[in-house]
This record gives sequence, structure tokens and C-alpha cells, in this order.
Amino acid sequence: MKKYALSLCFLCFSLVAFSQAGKINVIVFGAHPDDCDLDTGGTAILFAKMGHHVKFVSLTNGDAGHQEIGGGELAKIRIAEAQEAGRRFGVEYTVLDNHDGELMPTLENRLKVIREIRKWNADIVIAPRPNDYHPDHRYTGVLVQDAAYMVIVPNVAPETPPLKKNPVFMYSEDRFQKPSPFEPDIAVDIDAVFDQKIYAMSAHKSQFFEWLPWTEGTLDKVPKDEKERLEFLSNWRSSNPNPATLAALKKWYGDKAMNVEHAESFEVCEYGKQPTDDELKRLFPMLGN
Amino acid sequence: MKKYALSLCFLCFSLVAFSQAGKINVIVFGAHPDDCDLDTGGTAILFAKMGHHVKFVSLTNGDAGHQEIGGGELAKIRIAEAQEAGRRFGVEYTVLDNHDGELMPTLENRLKVIREIRKWNADIVIAPRPNDYHPDHRYTGVLVQDAAYMVIVPNVAPETPPLKKNPVFMYSEDRFQKPSPFEPDIAVDIDAVFDQKIYAMSAHKSQFFEWLPWTEGTLDKVPKDEKERLEFLSNWRSSNPNPATLAALKKWYGDKAMNVEHAESFEVCEYGKQPTDDELKRLFPMLGN
Amino acid sequence: MKKYALSLCFLCFSLVAFSQAGKINVIVFGAHPDDCDLDTGGTAILFAKMGHHVKFVSLTNGDAGHQEIGGGELAKIRIAEAQEAGRRFGVEYTVLDNHDGELMPTLENRLKVIREIRKWNADIVIAPRPNDYHPDHRYTGVLVQDAAYMVIVPNVAPETPPLKKNPVFMYSEDRFQKPSPFEPDIAVDIDAVFDQKIYAMSAHKSQFFEWLPWTEGTLDKVPKDEKERLEFLSNWRSSNPNPATLAALKKWYGDKAMNVEHAESFEVCEYGKQPTDDELKRLFPMLGN
Amino acid sequence: MKKYALSLCFLCFSLVAFSQAGKINVIVFGAHPDDCDLDTGGTAILFAKMGHHVKFVSLTNGDAGHQEIGGGELAKIRIAEAQEAGRRFGVEYTVLDNHDGELMPTLENRLKVIREIRKWNADIVIAPRPNDYHPDHRYTGVLVQDAAYMVIVPNVAPETPPLKKNPVFMYSEDRFQKPSPFEPDIAVDIDAVFDQKIYAMSAHKSQFFEWLPWTEGTLDKVPKDEKERLEFLSNWRSSNPNPATLAALKKWYGDKAMNVEHAESFEVCEYGKQPTDDELKRLFPMLGN
Amino acid sequence: MKKYALSLCFLCFSLVAFSQAGKINVIVFGAHPDDCDLDTGGTAILFAKMGHHVKFVSLTNGDAGHQEIGGGELAKIRIAEAQEAGRRFGVEYTVLDNHDGELMPTLENRLKVIREIRKWNADIVIAPRPNDYHPDHRYTGVLVQDAAYMVIVPNVAPETPPLKKNPVFMYSEDRFQKPSPFEPDIAVDIDAVFDQKIYAMSAHKSQFFEWLPWTEGTLDKVPKDEKERLEFLSNWRSSNPNPATLAALKKWYGDKAMNVEHAESFEVCEYGKQPTDDELKRLFPMLGN
Amino acid sequence: MKKYALSLCFLCFSLVAFSQAGKINVIVFGAHPDDCDLDTGGTAILFAKMGHHVKFVSLTNGDAGHQEIGGGELAKIRIAEAQEAGRRFGVEYTVLDNHDGELMPTLENRLKVIREIRKWNADIVIAPRPNDYHPDHRYTGVLVQDAAYMVIVPNVAPETPPLKKNPVFMYSEDRFQKPSPFEPDIAVDIDAVFDQKIYAMSAHKSQFFEWLPWTEGTLDKVPKDEKERLEFLSNWRSSNPNPATLAALKKWYGDKAMNVEHAESFEVCEYGKQPTDDELKRLFPMLGN
Repeated sequence: MKKYALSLCFLCFSLVAFSQAGKINVIVFGAHPDDCDLDTGGTAILFAKMGHHVKFVSLTNGDAGHQEIGGGELAKIRIAEAQEAGRRFGVEYTVLDNHDGELMPTLENRLKVIREIRKWNADIVIAPRPNDYHPDHRYTGVLVQDAAYMVIVPNVAPETPPLKKNPVFMYSEDRFQKPSPFEPDIAVDIDAVFDQKIYAMSAHKSQFFEWLPWTEGTLDKVPKDEKERLEFLSNWRSSNPNPATLAALKKWYGDKAMNVEHAESFEVCEYGKQPTDDELKRLFPMLGN
Repeated sequence: MKKYALSLCFLCFSLVAFSQAGKINVIVFGAHPDDCDLDTGGTAILFAKMGHHVKFVSLTNGDAGHQEIGGGELAKIRIAEAQEAGRRFGVEYTVLDNHDGELMPTLENRLKVIREIRKWNADIVIAPRPNDYHPDHRYTGVLVQDAAYMVIVPNVAPETPPLKKNPVFMYSEDRFQKPSPFEPDIAVDIDAVFDQKIYAMSAHKSQFFEWLPWTEGTLDKVPKDEKERLEFLSNWRSSNPNPATLAALKKWYGDKAMNVEHAESFEVCEYGKQPTDDELKRLFPMLGN
Repeated sequence: MKKYALSLCFLCFSLVAFSQAGKINVIVFGAHPDDCDLDTGGTAILFAKMGHHVKFVSLTNGDAGHQEIGGGELAKIRIAEAQEAGRRFGVEYTVLDNHDGELMPTLENRLKVIREIRKWNADIVIAPRPNDYHPDHRYTGVLVQDAAYMVIVPNVAPETPPLKKNPVFMYSEDRFQKPSPFEPDIAVDIDAVFDQKIYAMSAHKSQFFEWLPWTEGTLDKVPKDEKERLEFLSNWRSSNPNPATLAALKKWYGDKAMNVEHAESFEVCEYGKQPTDDELKRLFPMLGN
Repeated sequence: MKKYALSLCFLCFSLVAFSQAGKINVIVFGAHPDDCDLDTGGTAILFAKMGHHVKFVSLTNGDAGHQEIGGGELAKIRIAEAQEAGRRFGVEYTVLDNHDGELMPTLENRLKVIREIRKWNADIVIAPRPNDYHPDHRYTGVLVQDAAYMVIVPNVAPETPPLKKNPVFMYSEDRFQKPSPFEPDIAVDIDAVFDQKIYAMSAHKSQFFEWLPWTEGTLDKVPKDEKERLEFLSNWRSSNPNPATLAALKKWYGDKAMNVEHAESFEVCEYGKQPTDDELKRLFPMLGN
Repeated sequence: MKKYALSLCFLCFSLVAFSQAGKINVIVFGAHPDDCDLDTGGTAILFAKMGHHVKFVSLTNGDAGHQEIGGGELAKIRIAEAQEAGRRFGVEYTVLDNHDGELMPTLENRLKVIREIRKWNADIVIAPRPNDYHPDHRYTGVLVQDAAYMVIVPNVAPETPPLKKNPVFMYSEDRFQKPSPFEPDIAVDIDAVFDQKIYAMSAHKSQFFEWLPWTEGTLDKVPKDEKERLEFLSNWRSSNPNPATLAALKKWYGDKAMNVEHAESFEVCEYGKQPTDDELKRLFPMLGN
Repeated sequence: MKKYALSLCFLCFSLVAFSQAGKINVIVFGAHPDDCDLDTGGTAILFAKMGHHVKFVSLTNGDAGHQEIGGGELAKIRIAEAQEAGRRFGVEYTVLDNHDGELMPTLENRLKVIREIRKWNADIVIAPRPNDYHPDHRYTGVLVQDAAYMVIVPNVAPETPPLKKNPVFMYSEDRFQKPSPFEPDIAVDIDAVFDQKIYAMSAHKSQFFEWLPWTEGTLDKVPKDEKERLEFLSNWRSSNPNPATLAALKKWYGDKAMNVEHAESFEVCEYGKQPTDDELKRLFPMLGN
């Protein structure tokens, strides 16, 4: 099977873009419970508020990333935190049973990704690039890439009906330059929901108030009070859009872009459907608003 | 063992370029039965017509890429189609017994590639880059890269005598830009054999007239008549050389390049022998003609 | 767990850079016995002479790269040669029991790398990039990348106490351009110790005077005499700094750079601690001298 | 953790034998869709008729065992047949997505078995012995053995709550003598439901009327008529109890055993809970009736 | 697919026992070059002398079992010795490229065994039991067992046409008692060809005159002279039939059994075709002569 | 390489039984920290008191077997408990970094076992049989079996010098009957050191006073007081020798056997050196005393 075939096929499929009654199905893959949240939480809230369907999938159960506890005890905490975060985001949240720190790009794991994408009948699939500082992040990127195209092949995972179209696969933002930098195709203004994103993220207590501060040597700076914690998290995770994100914001929001404080940006992966700008606008209806 | 060693070694080996009596041995790896054909079919015909030896190797048996049938039944169809295509191209065609959609970069598979290259006593090895839309294509690229250099190490696969020289490894053309674009070192004018290429490719009936049109939603446009099918395939797979290919054509064909309608282009992989332009001209004797 | 966390953490950790009494711990990973030597031998001698601690780790036992012998017999020769080279370099040298030519990026191998880095309490970790001509080199690069960050996670390899900080991970020089070229952040003038580097490297007799010349077809040019062999090796492995290395030399050595005949250059990997120039200067105290 | 611990633990757990309101949960593992049916179909009907809960799990999707079709096409037929058979048996039927003929005793597959047992809250687990003529059957036996005990360990598959007790694991009957013969602990008189078992089994058309007769060279003897097919199947799969089964029948049914025409027998596996006769009687309430 | 099916099928297939013109095809699997020879060498000569076809397959290349050399160098010696031994036995000899001491029961290796059996169109398959002192021997036994039945499934290894019947699988003799002793079904009087067996075996010089004596501490007792070496080997490997073998000899040879000095005995594996005594007599036409 | 070779070799090696100055080196493998202790603790104390050298190796780090904690946190507790137990037993104790509940019979793990045996220069190797209730126990048995013989092959793990002789491999006692029962060749009277064994075992607090009672539902019966805990453990783990053990005791202790309250028994594995009774007596000098 070969590639030129695909370029034609984008045209025909672009006419039947959405799965049901105008609802867009978005699925986001992260390596750990809290990764989807950070990368796409604001956008997810915007989708959810418009009635679209978002699912977060953590490929590992997070059973390693903590300074004091570990194993099943930690996994259960992480799963509960993810469930609570999902409620706050307004999305479905699934945590797969793979060891944290041991995610490998196996065929088994690829098939799990394929099944999740199919069951969600996804229009949009979001994942990290295969370039990131944590091996689990990189292999999440590889696994999701490796699911692209295969989601439409009926003989693969035949018990789960294939998608009728290859979704748009997108990378979430990262800061890595090698072997090539992240180049956002779109950027989403999340200012309106930034507080909700921070509140939802704060459900991952064992991550944002225990493990990550520990790795940074700031554990003693973490407030005890719930409200102060939100402020702490908000300050910590706040940053002005970088030049590339700003350019993407301008493309989609025009002059309003200059005022955007918080944005999430995404790059179209070359291995799924290649959308036109019009299609991107329809797939991300919050763009420009 | 280290790298500078190699730079010297290219000089000495370049004097003994061809394996026997001026015949050039070319081996092409694809993921599925029909991949080698699309990427290198015209060039293969040109080699074969000049009396050189070309072998196509499909690393999977194509037992998944179809909308209706699958498994061994499909594999047997694909193998028969490949045999027929091989006859039409004038090349040897081998289909390895790996599941379609499940090719992984294992040591076992690498050794199979090494043995094929050695047995063919290859001067030129062609494969896709590790960047392509289908995971099987990408891992074909990885596996062939991983065979480079190892083909000369006598202690690896010791039952198959090693090559005396590292062949030139080349990538076939693709349209992917990340992490870096395909950069052709040569482009081959295949206008003289384009019709034969289409005819040979058409032996893959279950691919070009069943599966691929199905994935594009054009199944109802596929003609029944054999002659119309050739025209259908010819139109579908025809495209003017893109700028990079055109530049490569100009380098090798001069002004004639402007008139070339169909070309196949190739990039030298950094992991095998690094040929000079003179060597490329001797390895691809159709260049410039 | 997520990335922005890291950017803050570099600041705090930079104040506690060195592990003990100002001694810097450097660990170098290569695929074969002789790889660390070629890539970092001069720098290693400079570190050692200043009282710092350097360890070379070969991830394979070198049991394949020879034209006449192989297996355990060859591995034992390679291990003995590495021990002798280590003595001459003034570094510790460990050879792991993996087959040469069969190194795969398994979790098992990653854990071995993690344990080595932790046990050495490394400030600096050096390895090849995942882009190189030999698959073992590439997977060495992958494995060391995959150890970055995990070295600080206490639940991974829990029997080996984690590092308190993520070390600086660096790539040693190579000549490959795809998917992106090697871009040196620092270059070390090794002229003062080049002869010692050659002498130390010459301990790998089965590599430099047997296997590598055989692959280059120059076996008959290898001298028998010990002194002539050093000259032979010195000529063979000598090369003026390329433009990128020269630029790096200039940055750190100023005008003196123009007179440097032999240099080793290194690129900071994006996946470990991201040092400032000041930190690089403290980590590589020979810079500028 | 050690074994004597277990001998005590059987006593305490025997007082809390059943999971809910006297309902017994039975889960049966087979390698292919139709294996559970043949081995335990009659017993399953008896359980179901008494209101207990039975689940059949096929560890492969049966995508290889056919003379004409294969792959996903075959898997989908097999899954549909299994669903229909489940309805006829009165049991739940699940078919896992593993290739037929390629089942391996991996940790991944073991975890799938563990999760199925836990989710079913099983009191009884039935599987083939690791001694049988088909490798998939043997590895099914290994995988289910390897799940015994682990089903109660909370840190294994932590997202699926562990069982509070180790179930009774039982082997279904086979005719193999090496390394030790099948020794039934109980035998179930299925005469009253034999016709229903045959009818339910006949849902596996592609197995009993296509593939298996083909392997036996009796394809031309398979009737077309539905009713005749039931008779064909009934004759084919009918056999008087062998001496070991007869002895087990006598133990549980007394003199009535002599009149039993159709029986299914089971051996208690040493690796799960070791039930007393009283417990067996409570777990298999049809015994003696 | 299920087992009772098989019992019927033996009847029908027994009428079409041999593949072509009364010639019997025998394939023998061993772990190392020399294993098939020792276990079945005499029987193989008898088959060959009667015009039947015998193939020896060593699943590893023997590249570890030597006190001085190893790797590819050793493998090449072992392959050459096997070729010479094959000539002396009158059988075909194939050595597969797996590392000695590292044979694992992978699906890849199973498929290699399946293909060998099919290509030889085997009536009889002989291998060690999964109980033996060397792990490679045990996993050879497992791999060949795992090929039984699968050799007739067309969807497995679909590029190699399946056998029309399941061959008889047999175990060669060993002395191990756990978990159950070797129980010979037949024993073959090899007195008439014992000298030829010893001569053929002596082709494995690096085994019988170097490695094995070294492991036994008798290296200094190995003669240099070729003729004395045959005597040495003959004495070393000579032994009177043990009681179980003697009983089997009596069954097939009657009173002549008492005079047999050298015999090779075989047990029918339960996982392939289960032959009657008549069939065994036809498959082993030397029995009773 | 083949088996008869071995039978001779036992004779010659029996003359050089012990590694140094009459000291016997014993290495015991268990799956979890506490397994070696239970199976061989008394015998180990007796060896240690006589000045011989005993090492316990746990193949997993015990990071799963607990009802409340898990992962690295649990592993670190288990390692500390093992160290303390080792001190109390007078043996060296090593805990390998494999996940509890996930031990697989990989080549990697086999090599770790081989290296441990070689480094300890073992005369005696003890492990569970491949028949036991916990999969980790069974695969410990498989791994140690698979190390037998390979410990003397120089080309395997060539960086660790091979043993000059195959040690005696022994199974520790279990109660499993299938596929064949444990048959003790020797039994050791441990009455004199039973209290010390209980005291040493009690160092595994998280096992004997937390996890195992929890699995048995007796957590509320565990005393708090240290002395009462010893009594609790002593009662729990006390049992009169079973008939097979008693028979073995009689063989070695004569009439004294009738008075033995606590014994540990061992079966000689068929895959290592096969000792005579005299050799067993020399290897287990406490026998008969």
C-alpha cells in the first residue's frame, strides 16, 4: 500500500468530517496521569463546554514518579486523582496499566492505542512528539504515531471496528529543538478557562504538590492551603506565549493574539489526515473566538 | 570500532565497485508487496534491461491491508501478485513471512535483511526512510539502516559470507518533512519505461484495484476492463517531478530534465558507502541517458 | 510529570553542582571497547590529570568486530585491552556483557545504564548521538538518552540510590547530518595529551591494528614495531578541527583556538540538565586553558 | 512470600466461599472460540440454569484455524459465532484479540487473564492443562496457572481490585499421559443438557462444519441440513466416559454413574485454593443430582 | 478447534502414509551440530541406505561450546563439520543461525521449525524431549512440540504450503526420569552401521576430540591418529541397551534382540499423529530386520 | 555437545570436589526476599557455623507482595530486611532488581543466575522446583535449571570466568505432586538451629507479620511484642517431617531420625553434577551429625 493514495483520499474524506451530529471527538494521549492535562487541559475544557467529547488516556499508571511511595499504592492514588481531574475538566479519563518509567513501543501497546482511538471514534488525536525529556513521553509519541493509518485497517485489531477515516493527529507543544523544533499549526487562546485548567490540574495532588516540587527542590514552598495552592500552581505553570505560539495565535486570532496570556499550541503530525485551514477551523471551533 | 576508519575505506573500495563482470546488483526493500514497485519500479526496469540484477524484497506478506479478506488467504494472493509483478518488471521478488501491520525492528528481522543483502551481493540497497506514514514503512527503513555496516562483519550471521564492501544504501522518495525532508541525490528519468512500470504494478490487483481505492473511497470508480485499469492506474500514479526531484534531474540530465514527465529519485543514506558523483554514475548507468 | 518543572529546577540545582569536594565525576558510554577512547580520550586524560574521576563503559563486549576470531575468545581479548587502555588513560573501564552487533534499546539495558550513572554519581554523562553509522552506536545513544531523568526517580532501580540531580548529558562528535547535524557546545583542546591518547588507544590492538585496518583494506600497511604503530595510529586518527569545532574552540579558547591541532567536541543533550556557560566552564575546568 | 502460609489460609477462606447471595461465578478459559464449549459446555449450561454466572474467554480470536479464509475476516466470523454460542449456552462469551496459533505465555497475556478473573469475581476458574496437542492450548494452561495466586495480590494490575480469595483452579479433561495423566477430581453428568450443548456448539459453524472436518478429511460427509448437522455433531462428539471419569462419576453420583452417557470431568489444579469435598459439592451444586 | 477431532483423523490419514513413491521423509532436530548424529545417526544411515530421505537440522550454530574459540569463527567450523558429517551419514544437514547457549522458545524459532518440516514433507519428525541436561536441548524439544499440529494449518507460515497430514513426532532417547522417564516405543538395531555412525560422527572434530573431552577432563587422552580416534570415539559412545531399550528391541526383533550391541530408541510424542504398530513398522522398515 | 559425555565426567570431577581449603560454597536462589530463608535457612546456619560460605539470592526485589505499600518503597524495605536476615543467618544476601510478580525466564535473567553461581564458585546450588504455587517460584526454578551446565561454558558470559565443574543442583522441598512429587535425596536435621532460623526469618517483618498473615486473614492475630512474634512464627512454620522427609532423615541419621522435629530436605536435580552418597556426605557435612 502506498502514499500518493492518501493525498487524494484527504479530499473525499474532508466532506464527511465529523462523526455524529456535529460533535467532535477528541482523544489525548499522555504518558502519565497529569500529562494530558498540562498539554491540552484548556483546549479540552473549551471543547467540553461546546458539547464536544474529549477523552484523556494516560499510557502508564504513574506508579513510579514519587519520592516516597510507589507501586500499586501510588497507581491507585494516581488513578483517583485522574478521575477527579477528569470531572473538573469535563472529560473522560482513562489510566492504562503500564508501569511508569517502563513504557516501551511494543505492538501490544500500539494495539491498545488503536483500540482507544477507534472506540472514541476520534476526529482528533493529540500526543507528545517523540522528542521530549522523559522516555515515557517519547515512546507515547512513537506509539500514537504508529497507530496513525492502522486505525482504518480492518484486519488490525479486528474485534474493534476500524474508523472510516484517518483522524487528524496532532502534537502538543514542547520546547525541544532536536532533531527539529516544534512548529505549531494552531494555537488556542485558553485565557477564559485558565483558572479552571489550574483547578482541574490541582486534582493531581501527588504530582503538583509532592513529586514535582520535590524534583525541583521546592517542596518546602508548597502551600498547605487549598486556595494558595491554586495560586502557587497558577504562577508556576503560567508563561507568556513564545514567538512560535504567538505567530500561530496571530494567524487564527488576528490582533487579539497580542493580549493572550495563556495558550496551548499544536502541530499537525504528518502521519494522519492532513487538514486544510478550513478543516482545522471546523475541527477546532474555538479558534478565532 | 569507529567511524573515521570508514572515510578512508571508501577510497580503496571505490576501485572495486562491481561484483562480477560489470553487472550491478540492486536490492530493494519495501514493507508490503507493491511498495518496491511504486518507489523504484521504473529504475528497476532500466537496470534489468541493461542486464543488471534487481531483487525486490517485501518484509511483510501483506496479510492485513484489505477490506474484505485477510490472513494466509490474503498473503497467498499477495505473494502470487508479487511473483507476477516480478516477471513483468524483470526482477526477482521475495515476500517474507511477517505479518502486515506488525513489522517490528527486531534483531531477527535485521538479520533477515542482512542475509538478503549478502546473498544478492548487493552494490546498491534501496529502502524507505524511517519517516513515512505507515509504521511498517518506517520500521523497514530502520531495519535496512541497521543492516548497513553489519553486512561486512563476518561474525554476524556467520553462515552467510559477508560482503567485501559496504554497499551504497539509498532512500526512495517520500513527501515527509519532519524531522528533515527527503533530499534527492539522484533522479532517474523513467519516461521510456513508465508504461511498463504501470503494467507491472497492475499485477497487484488486490492492492491497486481493491484495497487502495477502498481506503480512498473510489472503489466504484475502478474500471473492470484491463486496459482501462492501466489507464486508471497511470493517471492515478502520475505526477510531475517536484522541485527537489527536478533539481536532481537537472544535475544528471542537464536541459533534458525539463521534459521529464516521470522520475524516481533517491537520496544516499549516510550509513553505508558514501559514493562520489562518478561512482553514482557508474552505479546508475542510466543516469544522463 | 511535566516539563516546565524542569526549567525551574535547573536554577536550584546549579548551586550544588559537584558531588564531592570539588571533584567532577564523568561517565562515558560507548558501544564497543575503543569507542569511548576515540570520542573522549583526550578530554578524559585532562580530567584525570586534574584529579577528577572518569569512567568508560562499553555497552557491548566487542565479541563480533574481528575478521578472524569471535565470541568469548574475542570478548576476553577486548576486555583485557580495555583494562590496559583504562590504565593508560587514568580512567576506570567497564565492559558489559552484551553481544557486539546485537545491542537493542531494551528496558534491561536502560536499567544497566541508569545504575552505572548512579553508582558513579555522575555530573557529566557522555554518549554518541542516536545518529551514527553503526546500529550499536545508535542504540547506545538511545539507551543513554532514555536514562536521562530516570536517574533521579527513586522508584526506578530502587536498589541503587538515585542521583539528587539530573546530570548534564552530552553527545560526542560525529559527522552525520541527518536528521540534524552535530552542533558542538564546547570543544576541548587536547593537543597537550594527544600523544598519551594515541598511546592509550593503542592498547586496543585487536581493533586498531587488526580489525579496522582489515575493514579498510590496509592490513598490510600496519607496522609491526610498537613505536611505528603509534605513529601509524597518530597519523590515521589525526585531523584538523572542522569549522563547527573550530567555532566552539574559539568561543572557549579565543585566539588560541587557531593553533589547536587536536580537539574533542561535545553537544549538550536536551534531555538532561541544561547548563549555563558558567556551569559548563565549571564542569569542564580545562576549557580555556 | 511462602507456601505453608497457604495451607492455613484455605481453612479460613472456606467459610466465605461465594461471592454474592449464593451465586457462583465460573470463568472458563480456552485458546480458541469453541474450546470452552467442548470442554465445559454441559456443565456451563447446568450452572446457568441454576442461576449461577458463567463466562467463556477465548484467548485467541481464532483467525488462523481455517482452510480457506483467515485474518480479520475469519476473526469476525469466529467472534460472531462465539456470541451466538454464548446466547445458546446462557453464558457470557469474550474473545480476546490475540492471533490464533501465536499465543505466547507473556506477562501481558497473564495480566489479561488476571483481569478477567478478577472482574468476574470468580469462584471457579477452568482451563486446559499445559499438556495438550495444540501449542495455544498448552500456553492457555500456562497462562491461567500463572494467574493463580496473583489474582489476590493488590500491587499486580492495581487498577483492577484483587480478589479477596484465591479461586479454585480446575483443569478440563484431556487424553494426554505425559508427563502425568489427567486425574479427574469430579465428573459432571451432562446427559440432561447434552442436546443443548450440541445445539450451542453448532453455532461455531466455521469450526465444526468446515475446519475440523477438513482436517479430518470428512468435509464431504458434513450435512447441509441444520437438523442433520446437529445429529452429525452429536455422533461425532459423543463418547462413553472413560474409566477415570467413570470413577469420578461414581464418587459423586453413586450407582447412577453407570447410566451416565455424557460427562465432563475436571481436576483440581494444585496452584489455587485446594477445596475439600464439601466445598467442591457447594461449588458444583449439580454434583450428585 | 478441539482434540477428539484428531482421534478420528488418524484413521483416515493412515491410509495415505507416505509422501511419494514409498519414500519416507525423516527430519531430525537437534540443538547443536552433533546432537542429531548421536541420537539418530545409526537409524539415519539405515533409512538412507534404503533410499529414504533424512535431514538433520541443528537449531543453533554451535558458536559457544568450545574451550578456546567462539563466535563466527567457531560457527563456521561447526557448519563445515556438519556438512562433512552429513556426507558420511548420507543425509542433508542444515545448521540454523541461532547462538549456541541462547536458544529460546520464541514464535520466530517455532516458525523456522514449521517451515523445515513442511519443506521436507516429513513423515517422521525426531527431536529431544523437553527434559534434558542442556537448556538448548530442552527448548529444541519445546520448539518441535510446538510445531506439531501447526504444520497442517494453512494460515500459519502461509508462504510455505502446509502438510496434508500431521507427521509422527518422536523423541530420541535420554536418561532423565523427571517429570517422567523416557519410554521407548521402538528401538532400532544399529549394529550393522555402528562403525559408519562413529566414522560420520568423527567429522565433528571440534566436538568429540576437543570440547567434550575438555569438559570431561580427558583432553590428554584424545589420540592424534585418525584410526585411533575412531576407536576412542567408538569405546566412549558404546553402551549396551538399557532395560527399557532392550524391551523395545524384543518387541520388534524378538529373540534377536538379545544380541544387539548398539541400538537407538524412540518414543512417540503424544502431540502428532499417533501411529499403530503396523504404521510404525511401515514408517521404520528396518524394524525387525 | 551431548549427554553421555557427562556420565564419565562425574567420576573425574568427584576427585576435586571443593573449591578451596575444604570450604564448601553454597548458593541458594529464591524468588522473593524470604524464600531462601524458609526453604534452606536451617541448613544455611549449619553450613555457616562450620565455616562454609552461603549466599542467598532473591531474583525479585519483592516490590509487589504487600497489601498496603508497593514499588520502590516496598523494595527498599525488603532489601533492608534481607540484609538483616542475612546477618542473623550468617550468610550473604543479595536482592536482584526484578519486579516481584513479573519474573520471566528470559536469557537476561538466566545470565544473571549464571554470573552469581560463578562468582560464588558454587559447589552446591539450591532452588525451588519449576512446580510451585507462585509463578515467580516456578520461573526461579526454570532459570536456575537453565543455568546448569552453562556455568562451565567459557563462551557464555565470557567476562565472568566459568566454573571448572558443574555444581550439584538441588531442589528445596515443596508439597506439589504434579507432574511428579518432590522426592528428597537428603534431609537435614535443623533442630539445633531452629530457633535461630525463626529469629533470622523474623527480620522479614513486612512478610511474616504483615503480608502473609493478611493473605491468610490472620492479621489480627499477629502479636506486637517481639518475643511473642518469634513464638507466633515458630508455631506457624513448625511441622513434623512428612513421610518422604522422614525416610530421607532415616537414610542419613539412622534411628536418630525419629526424634527430629524440624528438617529441611533436598532433591538432586538431574541437570547438574550427579553426586554419589559419599559426595553428598562430603558436600553436606552436617548429615548424620
